[in-house]
Amino acid sequence: MSQPLRWEDDALWVLDQRRLPAEEAWLRCDSPADVAAAIRTLAVRGAPAIGLAAAYGMALASDRAAAAELLRSARPTAVNLAWAVGRSLQADDPLALAERLHAEQREADRKLSEMGAELLPEGARALTHCNAGALATGGLGTAGGVLLAAWEHGRLAHVWVDETRPLLQGARLTAWELGRAGIPHRVITDSSAGGLMARGDVDVVVVGADRIAANGDVANKVGTYPLAVLAERHGIPFHVAAPVSTLDPATPSGGEIPIEERDPSEVASGSPALNLAFDVTPAELVASIVTEAGVLRPPYAESIAAAAR
Amino acid sequence: MSQPLRWEDDALWVLDQRRLPAEEAWLRCDSPADVAAAIRTLAVRGAPAIGLAAAYGMALASDRAAAAELLRSARPTAVNLAWAVGRSLQADDPLALAERLHAEQREADRKLSEMGAELLPEGARALTHCNAGALATGGLGTAGGVLLAAWEHGRLAHVWVDETRPLLQGARLTAWELGRAGIPHRVITDSSAGGLMARGDVDVVVVGADRIAANGDVANKVGTYPLAVLAERHGIPFHVAAPVSTLDPATPSGGEIPIEERDPSEVASGSPALNLAFDVTPAELVASIVTEAGVLRPPYAESIAAAAR
Repeated sequence: MSQPLRWEDDALWVLDQRRLPAEEAWLRCDSPADVAAAIRTLAVRGAPAIGLAAAYGMALASDRAAAAELLRSARPTAVNLAWAVGRSLQADDPLALAERLHAEQREADRKLSEMGAELLPEGARALTHCNAGALATGGLGTAGGVLLAAWEHGRLAHVWVDETRPLLQGARLTAWELGRAGIPHRVITDSSAGGLMARGDVDVVVVGADRIAANGDVANKVGTYPLAVLAERHGIPFHVAAPVSTLDPATPSGGEIPIEERDPSEVASGSPALNLAFDVTPAELVASIVTEAGVLRPPYAESIAAAAR
Repeated sequence: MSQPLRWEDDALWVLDQRRLPAEEAWLRCDSPADVAAAIRTLAVRGAPAIGLAAAYGMALASDRAAAAELLRSARPTAVNLAWAVGRSLQADDPLALAERLHAEQREADRKLSEMGAELLPEGARALTHCNAGALATGGLGTAGGVLLAAWEHGRLAHVWVDETRPLLQGARLTAWELGRAGIPHRVITDSSAGGLMARGDVDVVVVGADRIAANGDVANKVGTYPLAVLAERHGIPFHVAAPVSTLDPATPSGGEIPIEERDPSEVASGSPALNLAFDVTPAELVASIVTEAGVLRPPYAESIAAAAR
């Protein structure tokens, strides 16, 4: 289980995920600015992992208010950033808080992975998008943890891994994690999922989330929404796995979630391009939201309010 | 209007589309085997263009039966290959036949482009997938021709160009063609279309086709089917533009269309991968099929039978 973060020598060390799987290089962060840069440039990514990175970043701050501002604004879509920074501002010892959040994340992942695994049918051929494994959380992973637990319980036959353009977190990170865990998998282009579902080759979709609104709308890596629409058409359950820290009861619906637009050069060189990093899946397409506080079911307004309390 | 093919010095010259847009390099083909290799390796691609290439390939044959076999099997999904080879086998002068088919394609593209343009709303923001422009047909293009005609008639505001993984025919070829024509466009990742439709930024989808079954099911570049499903959800018309030579009344439905599986290395290096080149869009999701014989509407079993006669 490769971890995205570690604290050592009074610094935060970030596994540079941009260079995986070719190389395991660690970046040393000595200041909140270093951490914000690592988040912004995607050296560390995944909603829970960037929340933890921000918490550690707060432990590197001399001016905590300025650090909070910097870290909160590093990326706009994941709510875990604001959540972790908010928790840190209320703490006496930011480092102890970061370490506690990290431990809580590990425990949350363990719990939600076990609960999520039970949602998969025996011999499941699952499809996932982007990376929601250990690299994305600092624990077992969310969607990735569910797949790992299902594999360990003998319920998982195979994983279809969306390559996840433009930065290929699926092909680079998820495939690498699944390979290390010995789980049978194949990488596909993001637009192959429809054809595979139509052929009857997909039993379940499991994805992570960057922010879940009060009504159950889910912001996640761009391409998640098309999967949910296709899954509905083919009667395939679409599950979202996320810790409670990803629930955002203060945001009424997906329409109010800010969607990060990244540099067009990540998509196309030489042509004009639009690079939306996320999309919103409406709650009606979500079969369940698997959290460490339980498996949330519709109506989500109620189940999310109860879990986020 | 860049053309994919030309006949010169008793040889077929193929514009090597694998090297576009960086470089305009022409491959000389002196034998049916050379042409089959150019088709197989995607130096020339697009259903109508590979049909024409095969027709010219027949004109290079000493043994026409062997050449027919070789060219027909170069790629499995597009019906235009078998159609063009079949026409050539019945011709006295294969070169004259190839040139006539080429001229017919130009005329078909011109006609269907004009008819298709009228289907677009004023100020349309269109979305297209892969490349169905001049490079794909040897004429104006099918879907690309429709966009070009709509632009000339002042009906088109903007084109969203799916980059079209794994070989990026949208980002490399369609964006290049639109740029040369001065048509405003932006490249997006294939999985961005859902989010754009949900935001209300797409008015119409226009794509080409590699084979259209007797019932109206459409085989086209993988990723077409998800677009059709998303378009239906958002009430966006989904049009297919294709010459009559792409209609295949002998194939009852999409289930019987062979779907090419290409080398996994086109998708992922180092991980296991599945590389389906096409998918099938069921006729129920297709608003119209624009051909040179008219705009076909449901019920397609009837309109296709009439057009293909």
